[in-house]
Amino acid sequence: MKGTAMDIPDDHPRARSLEIREKLEEGYKSGLVTEMGLIAHGRGEAFDYLIDEKTIKESVYAIKVASKILNDSQNPVISVNGNTAALVPKVISDFTNETGINVEVNLFHRTEDRVRKIIKFLKEHGAGKVLGRNPGKRIPDLSHKRALVTKEGIYEADTVVVPLEDGDRTEKLIEMGKKVISIDLNPRSRTAQESSVTIVDNVVRAMPKLFEFYKEEPDVDIDEFDNEKNLEQIEAKIRRNKFGKD
Amino acid sequence: MKGTAMDIPDDHPRARSLEIREKLEEGYKSGLVTEMGLIAHGRGEAFDYLIDEKTIKESVYAIKVASKILNDSQNPVISVNGNTAALVPKVISDFTNETGINVEVNLFHRTEDRVRKIIKFLKEHGAGKVLGRNPGKRIPDLSHKRALVTKEGIYEADTVVVPLEDGDRTEKLIEMGKKVISIDLNPRSRTAQESSVTIVDNVVRAMPKLFEFYKEEPDVDIDEFDNEKNLEQIEAKIRRNKFGKD
Repeated sequence: MKGTAMDIPDDHPRARSLEIREKLEEGYKSGLVTEMGLIAHGRGEAFDYLIDEKTIKESVYAIKVASKILNDSQNPVISVNGNTAALVPKVISDFTNETGINVEVNLFHRTEDRVRKIIKFLKEHGAGKVLGRNPGKRIPDLSHKRALVTKEGIYEADTVVVPLEDGDRTEKLIEMGKKVISIDLNPRSRTAQESSVTIVDNVVRAMPKLFEFYKEEPDVDIDEFDNEKNLEQIEAKIRRNKFGKD
Repeated sequence: MKGTAMDIPDDHPRARSLEIREKLEEGYKSGLVTEMGLIAHGRGEAFDYLIDEKTIKESVYAIKVASKILNDSQNPVISVNGNTAALVPKVISDFTNETGINVEVNLFHRTEDRVRKIIKFLKEHGAGKVLGRNPGKRIPDLSHKRALVTKEGIYEADTVVVPLEDGDRTEKLIEMGKKVISIDLNPRSRTAQESSVTIVDNVVRAMPKLFEFYKEEPDVDIDEFDNEKNLEQIEAKIRRNKFGKD
C-alpha cells in the first residue's frame, strides 16, 4: 500500500492543506490526475504559502474583473484538466449548469481514457454537458495532444478560463485573439504573465468566488484593470511577507 | 498510460527541472516514492525557483559547516527516504562506501516492501551496507511508523543527516540530543527551523557538495555558525529576489 494523506497524524499543523491534497490523491487513484499533476499541485502548495493561503485583495479584484469579462463574453468556455476536476467538481458543474457557460476537458497529457473519466466524474457531480470528448480542431502551432479542442468550445470561444494551466497553451490562445482568464498561484509563471486576467489564488478558493461574482455581475471597470500592475503588486506583497509558515 | 515527463516537449524552458522530476517519476513507478513524495517534490520545485535553482553562498557555508560536523562526529548517519534514494542513489552509495558513514532508510509512510525496494535500489547503485530493514528501536514520543529506527544507526547516532524531512521527526531527534543536518528548500519549514544546520538547497546539488566537502575537511569554525542567522539571510535574499522564473 502506498502512503496516502489518510496516514497523516490528526494533530498535524497543516490539516487544511492536507484535506485539499487528499482530494487530489483520490483523483489520482481514480485516474483523473497524473503523476505530473501531483507534482504540479505540490508546487502550487508552496506558492500558496507565500500568500498565506488566503485570497488576497489583488486577487479579489482580478476575480471581479474576470467575472465581468465572462458576463460580457459571447462564447466563454471553462477549460478543465484533471487537477481542476478533482479539486472543484461541484463548483464547475454548478457553474456550467446555472450559467450555460461551456466546460471543456483539455489535458496536457491527453489520453482518451482520462478524458472519459474526467467527464464521468464531473457528471457524477451534476454537470450536464461537458465538451472535450471528440475534439475536431487544434490550437495552431502547439505540439502534442494538449492542442486538441472542440470547435463548439475552446476553438470558437472568445474567452477561456484556464485554471492550473500550461504556459505554452495560454500564449497560443492569446495569439488566437481570445481573452484568457487564468488561475495560477505563481505570479511569475508564463501563464500568469501572458494572461488577460491572472487570478493568483488557489483554485479551491478562486473558482467558487468567480462563480459567485459572476452571478452578482459586479460593477467594475474592466478598462481600469492592468494585469501586469496587479501582478507586480502581488509580487511586492509576497516579498514583504514572511513565506512558508510550516 | 499516465503522463510522464517523457511527454514533455523538447523545447520546454524548464528542461533541467524536468529531468530531475523524471528521476522521481521513475522512482514512483518502481515503488520507491509515494504520491505524497511526488507532491512534496513539487513543493520543493517552487522553493527552488525562489533561490534561482542554484546553491546560494549561504548554503555553501551551511554545507561546509555540516561536513565539518560530520567529520567530528563519532557515529553519524545519513537518513534516506524514497525521494532521496530516487534522486541521488549514486552519491548516497559512494558516500557510505567511501566514508563508512551509515545510511539508514527511514520513511514517513513506512511499508516493509518500500524499505526493501529502496535498499535494493541503493545496492544496485553500489551501496554496501544499508540499515533500516529491521528497526529494533523507536524515536520517543513520535507517532506512526516513521519513528522506527535501528539501534546501530539513527538511534545511537550523534549526528543525523536528514534530506527532505518531516518536521516532527527533526524536533524529536534534537530532543534526543543529536545534531541534525537537514537539506530543505523551504527556509521556514519546521525542519529548517529546528535543525542544527539547515542546508537550503536542492538535494541533487547539496548531497554531492556535502560529500565533496567532507572529503576535503574544510577549515571552518563551527562555533561561528549561527543557523538562525543564516536562515534569516536566505529569507532576506529570497525577498529581494525575483521569484519563479517560469
